[in-house]
Amino acid sequence: MKIGILGSTGAVGRQMIECLEEEGFDIEELRLFASNRSLGKKIPFKDKEISVEVANENSFEGLDYVLGAVSNSLASSYKDAIVKAGAIFVDNSSAFRLDEDVPLIIPEINGEEAFKHKGVIANPNCSTIISLMAIAPIAKLTKINSIVATTFQAVSGAGVEGMKELNEEIEAIKNGEKVEPKTFIKQIAYNAIAEIGTIGSNGYTSEEMKMQNEGSKILGLPDLKVNCTCVRVPVHRSHSISLLVNTEDELALEDIKKEMNKFPGIEYKEEVPTPIEVANQNNVYVGRLRKDLIDKNGISLWCCGDQIRKGAASNAIDIIKYIEKI
Amino acid sequence: MKIGILGSTGAVGRQMIECLEEEGFDIEELRLFASNRSLGKKIPFKDKEISVEVANENSFEGLDYVLGAVSNSLASSYKDAIVKAGAIFVDNSSAFRLDEDVPLIIPEINGEEAFKHKGVIANPNCSTIISLMAIAPIAKLTKINSIVATTFQAVSGAGVEGMKELNEEIEAIKNGEKVEPKTFIKQIAYNAIAEIGTIGSNGYTSEEMKMQNEGSKILGLPDLKVNCTCVRVPVHRSHSISLLVNTEDELALEDIKKEMNKFPGIEYKEEVPTPIEVANQNNVYVGRLRKDLIDKNGISLWCCGDQIRKGAASNAIDIIKYIEKI
Repeated sequence: MKIGILGSTGAVGRQMIECLEEEGFDIEELRLFASNRSLGKKIPFKDKEISVEVANENSFEGLDYVLGAVSNSLASSYKDAIVKAGAIFVDNSSAFRLDEDVPLIIPEINGEEAFKHKGVIANPNCSTIISLMAIAPIAKLTKINSIVATTFQAVSGAGVEGMKELNEEIEAIKNGEKVEPKTFIKQIAYNAIAEIGTIGSNGYTSEEMKMQNEGSKILGLPDLKVNCTCVRVPVHRSHSISLLVNTEDELALEDIKKEMNKFPGIEYKEEVPTPIEVANQNNVYVGRLRKDLIDKNGISLWCCGDQIRKGAASNAIDIIKYIEKI
Repeated sequence: MKIGILGSTGAVGRQMIECLEEEGFDIEELRLFASNRSLGKKIPFKDKEISVEVANENSFEGLDYVLGAVSNSLASSYKDAIVKAGAIFVDNSSAFRLDEDVPLIIPEINGEEAFKHKGVIANPNCSTIISLMAIAPIAKLTKINSIVATTFQAVSGAGVEGMKELNEEIEAIKNGEKVEPKTFIKQIAYNAIAEIGTIGSNGYTSEEMKMQNEGSKILGLPDLKVNCTCVRVPVHRSHSISLLVNTEDELALEDIKKEMNKFPGIEYKEEVPTPIEVANQNNVYVGRLRKDLIDKNGISLWCCGDQIRKGAASNAIDIIKYIEKI
């Protein structure tokens, strides 16, 4: 297999390299692309070192897959060249996620849809992946009518810069220095910021609408209604989500737990999972499963997953594994 | 006025002293009680210093009010002596909150109920106070049917020890030392713990059931249904809550904002409030007001309030002010 990675020096790109190595893929060639700033940088992969290149429209010839870990605008600018070169573009940006001819894939949930691709497969939003992994076993038992989600999102969602900003602020506060947010709109150390992305005319942020729009597409439920509140918290790399799911039929908790224990990629825990404990793991952890006190068809739960892994890099790798039947 | 404070050296007790001083109450006598460990300790109040006493059953003679900032068991052990002495016991513990003959008071919402007391008035749970302050203006416009709440609770909810534990863990992690949680069930630094209190047979924690039981009592709505998830986050002293309120009638956001701007003790902000910004203030801040995307009668919002002030100490002081018409 010949694979390229766009944005290979960012938090998600580096995790993609690590995941490829862990999975033990038989990789004939790995091409690493990044911006001019990283040109020539050497990145270890297996027993060799790979020099970082700056991508141009001829860079993708001969590749089977290109993994995208760049901005929407960069992903858009490279898309045609990747497709023209005959590679499959597994893209982590939100540029193509809602396009009708682009499958939006969480392999454990709708992997078969991936085969309908026309050169581009989109990797969903991080909080959406982690939430839907937790909800998927319930969706196997009955129809999901609505989801109320409140997220506790790690700073890694804003990349390497986000993680750096949290650490720098903690240090500045300790030294009695002034905190000057750059990556986040307000101080994130010892704080919680209930605004991620831009606020739209309906009062929801772009990040919150991803859970609605991508959730509906991935679950194949055009009528699904989602109420989401996305909050940034001072956690390094795992997202947690408090979920209330309303279902068509009333379910027994024991049946849901059984389904969760069968479902690949998730682990149900009687002890509450926390974001620190699930860091650096590909699985999504679920706990606090209980019946809603408002509606008999409601189910509440808490889930945590590594944002850089299953929320981004490892889900993209899982898409390749699904297609290649690895 | 003659006032006593039980637990005067804890986080809430110390804040009560500070609030009494700020409010400029004409206080003839202030008696400060604490455990043996603090006996004789001198605490400044206005232009003098007060020596900390250990309370006994004769300590409350002549007092008009005793403010309680101690555990349920200590509050229970002193209650009879306080009532017998003729003082009004404004208690912050959860020991008496659901007792039928004990008013549970947020003065801005149900202050008149306070006059029905039989010697004891209970101060509600911190997250419940902050949430209900944000919901109260909506409750003035129509009936509240249900509330879905996800809390982001500061470590101050576990007192001085909780705040110390967060700081010590941050330092330990920086030094590469092992973190050993004592006050919290897991590491709180860079983490989020979705379990506060003990888990009951319905799967909800004792902390989560307070929002249901106390919310229903304070709002005077026996049929109110609450789905709550309480989460501890690494924030020092302000709680934040993501709320979804379902109402009997459909409301216009502009009407709610108007009501919020009129309501005492809350401030509606177009810019998202964060817990750091509301620290050391008595007001509760509300933001992110928007219509639910699931039900036309749903309203979503985000609120933040200082846990030690309006969540505990200043609400207790507000109860005295309401009764004394100050």
